[in-house]
Parts: sequence; C-alpha cells; structure tokens
Amino acid sequence: MASSELQHQEGTPRTRVVVVGGGFAGLSVARVLSNKKDVEVMIVDQHNFHTFLPLLYQVATAGLEPADVAYPIRTIFRKSTNISFRHGKVTSIDLEHKEVLLASGPHLAYDHLVLASGASAEFFGVPGASELSLPLYTLADARALRNHLLRTLEEREASPGDYGPGVTFVVVGGGPTGVEMSGALQELLEICVRRDNLNIDLDESHVVLVDQGTRLLPVFPESASTYAAKVLEKRGITLRLGANVVKVTPDGVDLSDGTSIEAAGVIWAAGVSARGTLAAEALPHQPGPQGRVRVEPDLSVLQHPDVWAVGDAAAVLSGVGDDVCAQLAQVAMQSGKHCAKQILAVLNDRATVPFRYRDKGIMATIGRRAAVAKLNHGPVIKGTTGWIAWLALHLFYLVGYRNRFRVLTNWCWRYLDWPSGPRLIMADVETAE
Amino acid sequence: MASSELQHQEGTPRTRVVVVGGGFAGLSVARVLSNKKDVEVMIVDQHNFHTFLPLLYQVATAGLEPADVAYPIRTIFRKSTNISFRHGKVTSIDLEHKEVLLASGPHLAYDHLVLASGASAEFFGVPGASELSLPLYTLADARALRNHLLRTLEEREASPGDYGPGVTFVVVGGGPTGVEMSGALQELLEICVRRDNLNIDLDESHVVLVDQGTRLLPVFPESASTYAAKVLEKRGITLRLGANVVKVTPDGVDLSDGTSIEAAGVIWAAGVSARGTLAAEALPHQPGPQGRVRVEPDLSVLQHPDVWAVGDAAAVLSGVGDDVCAQLAQVAMQSGKHCAKQILAVLNDRATVPFRYRDKGIMATIGRRAAVAKLNHGPVIKGTTGWIAWLALHLFYLVGYRNRFRVLTNWCWRYLDWPSGPRLIMADVETAE
Repeated sequence: MASSELQHQEGTPRTRVVVVGGGFAGLSVARVLSNKKDVEVMIVDQHNFHTFLPLLYQVATAGLEPADVAYPIRTIFRKSTNISFRHGKVTSIDLEHKEVLLASGPHLAYDHLVLASGASAEFFGVPGASELSLPLYTLADARALRNHLLRTLEEREASPGDYGPGVTFVVVGGGPTGVEMSGALQELLEICVRRDNLNIDLDESHVVLVDQGTRLLPVFPESASTYAAKVLEKRGITLRLGANVVKVTPDGVDLSDGTSIEAAGVIWAAGVSARGTLAAEALPHQPGPQGRVRVEPDLSVLQHPDVWAVGDAAAVLSGVGDDVCAQLAQVAMQSGKHCAKQILAVLNDRATVPFRYRDKGIMATIGRRAAVAKLNHGPVIKGTTGWIAWLALHLFYLVGYRNRFRVLTNWCWRYLDWPSGPRLIMADVETAE
Repeated sequence: MASSELQHQEGTPRTRVVVVGGGFAGLSVARVLSNKKDVEVMIVDQHNFHTFLPLLYQVATAGLEPADVAYPIRTIFRKSTNISFRHGKVTSIDLEHKEVLLASGPHLAYDHLVLASGASAEFFGVPGASELSLPLYTLADARALRNHLLRTLEEREASPGDYGPGVTFVVVGGGPTGVEMSGALQELLEICVRRDNLNIDLDESHVVLVDQGTRLLPVFPESASTYAAKVLEKRGITLRLGANVVKVTPDGVDLSDGTSIEAAGVIWAAGVSARGTLAAEALPHQPGPQGRVRVEPDLSVLQHPDVWAVGDAAAVLSGVGDDVCAQLAQVAMQSGKHCAKQILAVLNDRATVPFRYRDKGIMATIGRRAAVAKLNHGPVIKGTTGWIAWLALHLFYLVGYRNRFRVLTNWCWRYLDWPSGPRLIMADVETAE
C-alpha cells in the first residue's frame, strides 16, 4: 500500500497533475487540461460526485433531491482520455517527495499539485455553534438539515403538550445563504401545515434571521438589501439585525443584546473559512485571511512553484491592489481555469501571468418570484425578472443535461403545484457504518 | 408522555382505527376508510414515507433515486379528512388496554387495530448471513447496498495490487428479487467500466446467482424459468443452481457442495419472514408459517376480533382449502382492502366475510427488454412484450403523479442513453446520529 502509484504510460512520460477537490475550482482546472497531450490529471475527492453548492438550501428544505445537485465526477470526464478519478480522503501532502497521501490505497505522485479542497463552516468561536447548530456547506449537511427539520416538525405534532403549538427556527447569517435559507424554510413550514395537514400553529411558528450587521446582503447595493428585508418580512420571516449570536444552546441562541430566542433548530449560515481544512494543514506556515492559503498573483503557492491553490481554499488576489477575492463560485471557476493555463505555461516554458478576477455580478434569491441580482456596472434587478435570471443562470451552471432537466421539471412542478419535492425523512441511523 | 391521546372530536365519538405500517397493505386499508364518517384512522410508521418495494433493486443499482420510489404518507392522504399520520416506531401493543405504545410520544388508543407491519429478510440461520450479507427489503437497505457496491468498485480500482483485476458479487436467491438484482447488477458493472472508465477487468468480474432449487423463478411455469436462465447467462451472469449457501464469510460464501465463491459482496434475496417483527412479537402465541400472524378467514386475529393482520405480516388464507398466500404485493393490497371492508361491516353490525385471493398473475424483469409475465389462466409472456407490460404495471401502481413522471423519464433516459441514474456514493457516515 505504501508504494507510489505509477502514472506513467509507456513511451513519453507525461506530466502528472493531481487536483485535490472536485468542486467548482477543481473541475475548472480539469476542464482546461482535458485531452491535453503530455498532461495526465488525477482528481481526488472524498465524494465521488461534484456538488452544486448554490442549490444546497433547496435540498435542505426538500425542494430538490440530493441527486439533483450532485453529479459523479467520473461521468463528467468520461470523454476525457487523460483525466482519472480517485475516490478517497486526502490525509496529508508530502511536499518534499511530491506525493499526496490518502486514508487508504497507494499514494499519488505529482509533478504539479492543485489544492482545490474548499472551505468549511466558520463558527467564529461562538460557544455551542459547532456542536449544536446545523451548517450548510456539503450535501451531507443539507441531508442532515432536512432530516432534522422534518423530524422536528413530526415530533412537535406528536407531542404538542411537551412543546407547545408552534415551532421556531433560527437562521444565523444575513448573506445570500441565510436569506435564501430563511425564505425557503418559511415556505417549507407553510407547505407542511397547509398541504400535509401537519397540526402545528403557523401563527405561533417563526423563522428568525439573525445577523450582526445592520442590513441584509451587505455585498449588494443598499436598495437590494432594503428590498430583501421587505420581501422576507412580508412573507413572515422575523429579522433580528444588529444582533450577534454569542452562544448556541440546546434550546436556541443567546444574543449580544442580552435576549434569547428559543428554537428547535439553529441553521448556521454565517460564513466559511479554510481553517482546519486540508489546504490549511498542508501549508500551515502561511495562512491568509480565513485560514486560506496565501498564493502568488499567478495562484502558485509562495515558495512552492509546483503547488497551486484555487477557489475557497486560497487567498486569491483579485488583481486590483491587495484585494483578496470573496469565497464565491465565480472566483472558484475563474481561478481554476487560470491555474490550469499557468500549469500549461510552465510546461511550455512560458512565463505565468497574474490572475485577474472579472466580476460578472452577484445574485441571491429570496423565494418564489423574488430575487436580487447586481450585474457588474449594471443596475440592480429585483422581483420576478431577477428571479428568472437567477433560475436561468443556475440551470446553466448545473453539470449535466440530466440534472438540468430534473431541476427544471422540479422547479416547474413546484411553481405550478405548491408542494415542491417529496418531504422524505431518510434517517441515516439505520445505515450508519 | 404516558397519557393516551384523545382522538375523539367533540360531538359523536368516532371509531378509532390504528394502522401499523404504511406499506401496500396499510395504505390499502386507509384508502378504503378514507373520508368515511364515524371512522378516524391513524397510520403509524417509523418512516414518514411509503416505499414502492418492487423497484428497490433499481435504487440499489443506481438506476433510480431513493425519492423516485418513496412517497410521503401525509401527502398521499392530504385530501382525506379522517386520516392522520404518526411518525414513530411502535415498540409494543397493549392488547388489554387497547393501546399502541411508541418509542416516544403519547400512546395511541384504538378501537380497531390493523397490523400491517410487514416482514424482514429471512436468513434461515445461515452463519454470517445476517451480519455479513446485504438484504434488500427496505429503502435503507437499498441505499446501503448501492453505497457498498459503488464504494467497492472504487476501492478495487484504487488498489488493484491488493485485490486483483476483477470483482465478484454473489446474489443469493433465484426468485424475482434475485433475478432482477443479478441482471441490474451486471448492467451496473458494465456501465461503470464502459461509461465511467473504471479500471476493472470485466472478463475477470462476475455476478454469481446462487439458489438451492434446480430452476430460477420457481413460482413461474417451467418455460419462464428456462427463458430467465438463458437471458441471464447470455448477459454474463453465472448461475449456480442446486447449491445451498451454508455460510457467509467476510470473503464470500461457502456452498453445500463444498466449494466456495470469493466475493466482494453478498446480496441476500433468499426470502422474507415475519419473525422478529412487531406483529410476531405482539402476538407470540400463535405464529403461522414464516412467523406470520395466524388470522381467521376474515383476516381478524384469532381470539382478538378487534385486531386485524394483513399483508406480509399475516398468514393470509387464500380462500382455497388451507392454502396460505405468498408474501406478494398483490396479496398485501387485496388483504388490506378486504380488512377495511370487514371493519366497516363490524361497525355497521353486519357479518364479516372470508378473504378470497384473486391471482392476477406474476411478473419478473430480467434486464433491458427482457421480462416474464404469467397472467392468471393466461399464457406466459416473454421478452420485450413482457418487459413493456412490466413497465406499465409498475408505473400504474407507483404512488403519485410526480413519482410516475420521474420514474418514466428516468427509464426513458436509461433506455436511450445507457448510463442510467447518477452513480452517487452518499456515505451516511458523516451524518450518522
């Protein structure tokens, strides 16, 4: 098991590029290198599928099924002759011997290594947050969250004497994820009561969005924030802005203003960080903001010209001053693509060029027929137009015709016939290994 | 928590019918009682969804998604004013006080109780079978089996030095489930290698179907058995008939003829029994064949006129001599319907009538464009015609337009474009509670 795997084919030795992570960034690297002669790519991921993270909140609220937002990495690259996939968890990187070590199976030798291992939820040291709140960053998170939400509703209905007539959920974070999650959660509550005859008092039930900032969607222009707040409040969501969560307890959250909110579940959408992830642990001597790996302007890691870092794992410089890009899907895709081109440049003895982020705009959906979009240098689009733009863009970026077709039909179904997807509690307890 | 739940509405007291189990039998009971005045129905199930068991093998082999064969019980009865649902695990029945006890939440008082709690895999005391083989009777089984199959293939590809170039799976049981599973598993193997470029040698890989009988599908006429064997062998499945599995080991199975088969997985499709299930434990003094509850010809339990047993949990008399019906979906549906009518008869002071099974025929699919169907008193239908009949019948019985639509589009996709559903390994380990 300790022997390095031989990647070289007979004949010309090909450059071995190992890409750790099959998210937006890792896939973008591989797409550029696909079918390039002289390069052999191995994508390693602990999941055998790519997850379309922007739609996770719909899986968590039973609007989409897990398979609608996941696509097997092998299937994506089945027509690429030089890309292979390894299902496994990377435990460490041996930078000296240029090998990737896995929890099981042979090591992977590389000539160039791309760290595209993403980030994970950032709890900012808030007591109880990592143990008691539910993050939303992986497909497993989304499935666990859905099971928790639906099971909680069933328990409340079964024993109203123990719990009272209503149910409250708290969403922490007023960025796009928090706003999307709050809107979808309120819809789910209403569907469960109105369609599934769940015996819970809607007037006594609340979705509370907490954020320390004074406005929602702080990266959007002020008018988008005002619009989002207005739509959410009109749909029944309670906003608690300017309040910090100082503690998560089994009964809810304690806020910085001394008040508490009793809740049956706390959803953590307050941010992500690379701390504790593989990339941060492989290169511990040079953490950037949020624990992200510091990189040169061309995305190579400082002092390691054969190691690259892209996407959420890297402190990608935007190309404007010393600005570091936000952890966005667009940045992940653009940086992945750029990194692959630089690897090709190195192989062809050309000089690398600095990355420059092209801001195409940002979008967030708030619920049925309500979204905000801010195009670069363009106006803020709101309401139904924004919503349709949001739908179209997300369909476009979803991998695979089959998934696009399924998500589109799901959305049509949901739009025409309120109940959305099946509200299934797939308890993992029976199949836990 | 110990107090009985009051089901009576103000005004006329309504008869409380508690149905334990939301499978074919339980749903059929509830459908007949739906919107009947003077009756109040509570369905209890440990899952909040009904599972369409006949298509489980397609979930196990990644042809369909879990949500395609599951439907929330609340949603099924959302238009019924007198049917409610309780999500919970029944721990025991208090026959004296007429209460159903749950693992959590208030007890459920009943006037009539219907045991429709199904069966589970029967391992016939074969050493190692219950611990090491993978049954296929619940949706959790199917998900666990799929994860095992796909993960095994990934492991073999990653470490061919440890395992050799091929992979072998054993299917135990030559009934419809074993035949369907073998055919689908062989397809999955070929898809993984040919479409997903999995580096496994198909010539060195085998699906072996083992059965102690001398022919497949023993409940079908001989010509169907011969056809099934011919199709399976032509598609590459190895048949080991007339051989008994005497032991399941971590490395495969030992057979009664003294030989062993080395295998990466053993799928147990050898039969079901009610032993160890709720119904058998609630009424331990009168077990029938396979541990099933003995019932009167009208389906009431011996000496308990207010307790009924239906479907796989009951030793349903066919109405012809002392014959006990096989554990089939048709029997479950017909016995459920009959039971509900008898409860209504009792409530209206009418005499109950004996159940009589109407055999509408049996069907089994073997793979793409190959199935056998035996209609009652009719001919055996084979090949493409049988396959189309099988597709149509299964779509017809699937609950919900949404699921029918999704399964139909999945099948069309699969038929036109070989790869079938996404081959996702959704490891439950991260979300285990």
